[in-house]
Amino acid sequence: MYEPFRDPTLTPRERVDDLLRRMSLREKIGQLNQRLLGWRAWRRDGEGISLTSELDDELARWGGLGALYGMLRADAWSGRDWETGADPARSADVAAAIQQRVRAASRWGIPALFVEEAPHGHQALGSQLLPVNLAAAATWRPELLEEAAAHVGAELAARGAHLALVSGLDILRDPRWGRAEETFGEDPLLAAHFTRALVRGLQRQAGIGAVLKHFAGQGAGIGGRNSSGAPLGPRELAEIHFPAARAGIDEGAVGVMAAYNDIDGVPCVADRTLLTDTLRDDWGFEGIVMADMFAVDRLMRATTDAAHAGAVALRAGVDLSMCDLSFTELELAVERGLLTEADVDVACARVLELKVRLGLLDGDPPRVAFPSPTPDIAEAIASASLVLLRDERGVLPLPREARVAIVGPNADDVEALLGDYVPPLPPGVASSIREAIGRIGGIDPPFEAGCALTEPIDGGLERAAAVARESDAVVLVLGSSSGRSYDDDFQANGAAALGGRPPGATTGEGFDVAEVRLPRAQRDLVEAVTGAGVPTVAVIVSGRPLGVEEVLDRCDATIYAWYPGPQGGQAVAGALFSQRDWTGRLPVSLPRSSGSLPVTYNERLETTLRYVDGDAAAVVSFGAGARDDRIRLSDPRGPLRVAWRELPGTVVSVRVRNDGARAADVLVQLYARARVPGILPRRAVLVGFAHERIEPGSTRRAEMTIDRDARTGFEEGASGLLDLWFSTTGAGEPVDAITIEVC
Amino acid sequence: MYEPFRDPTLTPRERVDDLLRRMSLREKIGQLNQRLLGWRAWRRDGEGISLTSELDDELARWGGLGALYGMLRADAWSGRDWETGADPARSADVAAAIQQRVRAASRWGIPALFVEEAPHGHQALGSQLLPVNLAAAATWRPELLEEAAAHVGAELAARGAHLALVSGLDILRDPRWGRAEETFGEDPLLAAHFTRALVRGLQRQAGIGAVLKHFAGQGAGIGGRNSSGAPLGPRELAEIHFPAARAGIDEGAVGVMAAYNDIDGVPCVADRTLLTDTLRDDWGFEGIVMADMFAVDRLMRATTDAAHAGAVALRAGVDLSMCDLSFTELELAVERGLLTEADVDVACARVLELKVRLGLLDGDPPRVAFPSPTPDIAEAIASASLVLLRDERGVLPLPREARVAIVGPNADDVEALLGDYVPPLPPGVASSIREAIGRIGGIDPPFEAGCALTEPIDGGLERAAAVARESDAVVLVLGSSSGRSYDDDFQANGAAALGGRPPGATTGEGFDVAEVRLPRAQRDLVEAVTGAGVPTVAVIVSGRPLGVEEVLDRCDATIYAWYPGPQGGQAVAGALFSQRDWTGRLPVSLPRSSGSLPVTYNERLETTLRYVDGDAAAVVSFGAGARDDRIRLSDPRGPLRVAWRELPGTVVSVRVRNDGARAADVLVQLYARARVPGILPRRAVLVGFAHERIEPGSTRRAEMTIDRDARTGFEEGASGLLDLWFSTTGAGEPVDAITIEVC
Repeated sequence: MYEPFRDPTLTPRERVDDLLRRMSLREKIGQLNQRLLGWRAWRRDGEGISLTSELDDELARWGGLGALYGMLRADAWSGRDWETGADPARSADVAAAIQQRVRAASRWGIPALFVEEAPHGHQALGSQLLPVNLAAAATWRPELLEEAAAHVGAELAARGAHLALVSGLDILRDPRWGRAEETFGEDPLLAAHFTRALVRGLQRQAGIGAVLKHFAGQGAGIGGRNSSGAPLGPRELAEIHFPAARAGIDEGAVGVMAAYNDIDGVPCVADRTLLTDTLRDDWGFEGIVMADMFAVDRLMRATTDAAHAGAVALRAGVDLSMCDLSFTELELAVERGLLTEADVDVACARVLELKVRLGLLDGDPPRVAFPSPTPDIAEAIASASLVLLRDERGVLPLPREARVAIVGPNADDVEALLGDYVPPLPPGVASSIREAIGRIGGIDPPFEAGCALTEPIDGGLERAAAVARESDAVVLVLGSSSGRSYDDDFQANGAAALGGRPPGATTGEGFDVAEVRLPRAQRDLVEAVTGAGVPTVAVIVSGRPLGVEEVLDRCDATIYAWYPGPQGGQAVAGALFSQRDWTGRLPVSLPRSSGSLPVTYNERLETTLRYVDGDAAAVVSFGAGARDDRIRLSDPRGPLRVAWRELPGTVVSVRVRNDGARAADVLVQLYARARVPGILPRRAVLVGFAHERIEPGSTRRAEMTIDRDARTGFEEGASGLLDLWFSTTGAGEPVDAITIEVC
Repeated sequence: MYEPFRDPTLTPRERVDDLLRRMSLREKIGQLNQRLLGWRAWRRDGEGISLTSELDDELARWGGLGALYGMLRADAWSGRDWETGADPARSADVAAAIQQRVRAASRWGIPALFVEEAPHGHQALGSQLLPVNLAAAATWRPELLEEAAAHVGAELAARGAHLALVSGLDILRDPRWGRAEETFGEDPLLAAHFTRALVRGLQRQAGIGAVLKHFAGQGAGIGGRNSSGAPLGPRELAEIHFPAARAGIDEGAVGVMAAYNDIDGVPCVADRTLLTDTLRDDWGFEGIVMADMFAVDRLMRATTDAAHAGAVALRAGVDLSMCDLSFTELELAVERGLLTEADVDVACARVLELKVRLGLLDGDPPRVAFPSPTPDIAEAIASASLVLLRDERGVLPLPREARVAIVGPNADDVEALLGDYVPPLPPGVASSIREAIGRIGGIDPPFEAGCALTEPIDGGLERAAAVARESDAVVLVLGSSSGRSYDDDFQANGAAALGGRPPGATTGEGFDVAEVRLPRAQRDLVEAVTGAGVPTVAVIVSGRPLGVEEVLDRCDATIYAWYPGPQGGQAVAGALFSQRDWTGRLPVSLPRSSGSLPVTYNERLETTLRYVDGDAAAVVSFGAGARDDRIRLSDPRGPLRVAWRELPGTVVSVRVRNDGARAADVLVQLYARARVPGILPRRAVLVGFAHERIEPGSTRRAEMTIDRDARTGFEEGASGLLDLWFSTTGAGEPVDAITIEVC
């Protein structure tokens, strides 16, 4: 019998329409659910695997399955480890076995979408872990992340997965937020470029669908409290929080995840203006909208009725839920007239069309080999992400022959390098900064932790000072950690729960802080160590922009290293002992303390310059990094007058001179300030950036275009003046600016 | 010759239309300016006064004058004091002399509006100063402020002024803001009631026009930084920032002042949606919109062209500017086609119509005597504003025979009681808390400051501890100060400038703080004093909600006293030594530290309960005060179902029982939580409050209506459930709630 939905010569829409005509309401609703946690669908059975009755029950309930989340997830929350989880060799078997069972349970043989966490590498055993997004952003080299994402995609494809959940859309407006590390920082343009890189790497290169999270505004949640509300206006949303999403969609992302937070009172999963009017009608998005885990059930804070909550979310534009009770009651919602079957069809069609587009209805894809690990690209990102904040006395690079003492709570901690959302690593893959420095020197350097992340250690300060005094130089490794333990408690959605006991970690999902200053125990350590009078290089390992004013004041050099991943120890060690160009730049401003927030560089102009009790500005601002004294920018040029529609793509240029004796890699940044009458200008807006290589003693004219993803302030036909200026170290105040009349 | 504009039998509009037909463009624009600072229009000349050439120049320029700001202002910024300023006896002469000159300069004899600052009493010599607004709000008794405002109005009328600038619309969402004291706190309903009280007292009782400031959103400026932007959405504006303005306009306020801040990028003075669509078209406001001082010139951050800036503001809906260059160039703006003369006419008509309505065109009003001072009402507000936060061991009232030591930086400081925007007081009017306690005891109690507001004093802690040890009880007076000195530097708009030297003040306009915790010097003093082991009562004198967790933990009783005004010392002393009902309640939540902001009680529900490094909740929340253990609430009742339009005015009730042996004054608060599907509920919203007097051992059923000024969440035809609960000490979680179905 000819069944059109099986016919690959028909359009996806034709195949889906045929399927919809055949499916029952129950079956359609099944396609909108990914309720079962994937690692509970199967278990290791000696060397083999077996499928669970939980899977069978779910399949029986729906006559199939829409999507399965986290089938290969391995971490403290899932409890899956090297004994119980899916290593690379076993993963494709797990996927195939589950898919076979899913197909068999469906009258139409519809397979499930396999959805995996991949915020910085796939959260599965044996995957290539990457530096966190905030580190990637500090490279200002999206092409590196694209290459890495292509590898992650190849791994996922080899394991039989279809969709990768990747962060990118959260713009970090409050560094108290524990998920700071998952963002590409505070700037929409930088986030847009890295989001495009993720989509290109995963989708175009590897054929894995990218689901971009989170949409929208979650990086501006009040108080930096996870998933708290963002009472923002439409201009702030459009200028700060939407560009990355829009860029990712423009690049072809197949999915978007609706965020937990509300925007001005309306939870994103209930926000039809956001999920339908803006996303689909204005931007032309045709993929699926997935809700964050249990986000739809949270609507029951306003309605205790699960069917009603599900109906609100579906009508707003959520297609696929994750773990919610609410979406399992959509049948009841239809019965009660809260939804029509046509509403369900709209969402179901999107899920099915994605399956068709990904080839799921056309039989199993050929098995491909698991790709070789690529520590090189991970290390390259880690290395390029290092931001030298200060080295005024030129203590870097450290001489290889120096006796170097290693001090600090993060100096010998591998976990602290990795970030949140990581699988257990096999031994030997990652090394701590201490171990990596030891490998360079060929000897085991003297080491003293000095303190824990937030607590003193008995006698630690004295021992650290003693170790410092006996050395030629000190590497002082401070910061935070997102390390999770298999003993930790977790919330229903996998975020770590803050229990009664003092948590070891200070960042990551669920680990928001009230105070972003470096904790007192670490400030005391800085004082004790620098008191020894030995050249001291501070390395800040943190997924959050910390207030490190005292570190900058007291240490000879300071490097911000983010969470650099398993190859991060090596990258840091290499950078400490080698002549290099420091092209990494802050993707986020470093605040003085929580009391001075917000300090993002692109806030609007203010008249207040300081508080009674301190400066209101950032300690180090977005885009900054130690100035390369060899480099001179001069003679900026651009057109005098441009029509607003033609502003994106407008070419401007600047002369870049290298007075040094070595070739220089330079990151040139282009900032703008829009003067539109009646609108208060943002202090600066990044509208372009490019890496240039300048030969010694030579000059190049660097050309740059005003980026299509940048929101200059002239998007709506506004007219006025656009000041543009170049920099290599953040916006500062406009210096040597050119002005374009926009009409 | 019959000139219709002089005919009092015509309508104001008819008279204004006639005037407009006669006036030149220049004359009309003159009516839109109040550029000259009023105290510079005249000078003391021995016992007489003379008018300045500055006034004559301004009159000659415009052929008249729209308005004159601060003619009677006396303070450090204006430099006017008892030697050089206008005392009550002289004020009406000053006004009459200036008005005569203004009329003579106008071809049509149009007088000027005299505009005076009266944020808590008229900022002029010999006026009755009141507690700051934040203190007034803590009484939860708007009728007290109405009575006081009527007195202020009578003073202004006797001095010949027409308009009073009064605060009320700023809703304090970030306590870092230096102007916290000028607000009625964090709640829109409380602010709405007190704004109504101001308008009733000034306008209805005294015939002085109220100009309500500031409109809108200034209490939510980012970072608590003065006049910084508020990137808010429309729902947050409508629910939090608009109700007070709307209530004041409903009460008949003749003026509104457009604020400095931008809302979502659009400065209020350039915001046509705000000033015209919302204020006039939606709310029916027919008075004048005045811009804050130099606020229009600040538009030159987007356009360097003053005429353009003026045109933008006028077209948005600003009628009368203050000090701006921009509004003096409106003639040029008309010439250049940025405005039409018809645009100018619209604004000019509003200014003229106000003059007509206030009787300015009908000759000088009869002189009235300056009213006798009313320290009683000021003291009554101060006394009712005291919030007892804790007295678990029952140390209050202190026995009159006890040897009481007075300690703390604010214990013997009169200035610290007064707040910002105060004139110099004549000697003997105000007394410090130490002096007032001394009068009660009839002896001079031992006193030791112990520390300055933000700095230690050499040996202070030791002396304070010693004084404490030798006493039966300690009154420890901590907090902040808005005291200004005639040596201070000021910004162009009169806000104090933060210069290089350590400022003495820690609150008031221009004195924003990064950290709202009680300063370390004072926390150290708390530790030193309480270490003496003597019963200690802390009194917090502050115009800002401070983080006083350690005070609450260590002192036996804590009273929040705000800036209680010149009679505040007496009010505090009286309260310490008398049996009384503490009915004052917090109008604003006390945060733990800046890191946990925002902590307002009516934020939306969140899932995060704490930060890694501390609790995310307020230390003491809005509406709270020490529980009166005699009082029991029970048996709440209300209708089961109400149509949304009928929700305002819906009657609910609760039984209030007094188990004590004395009659009790009780403040009953009514809170609501709206459950509207698809909207994230606010934790609680105050929808009503009332003072009840309950005889000993008896019970009353207190009836309350859902207030017309409350935004329940059901204003737009929404349907759902409304939980309602009663409390005497803040919202807490809903307990014993009744639920109304709203349809």
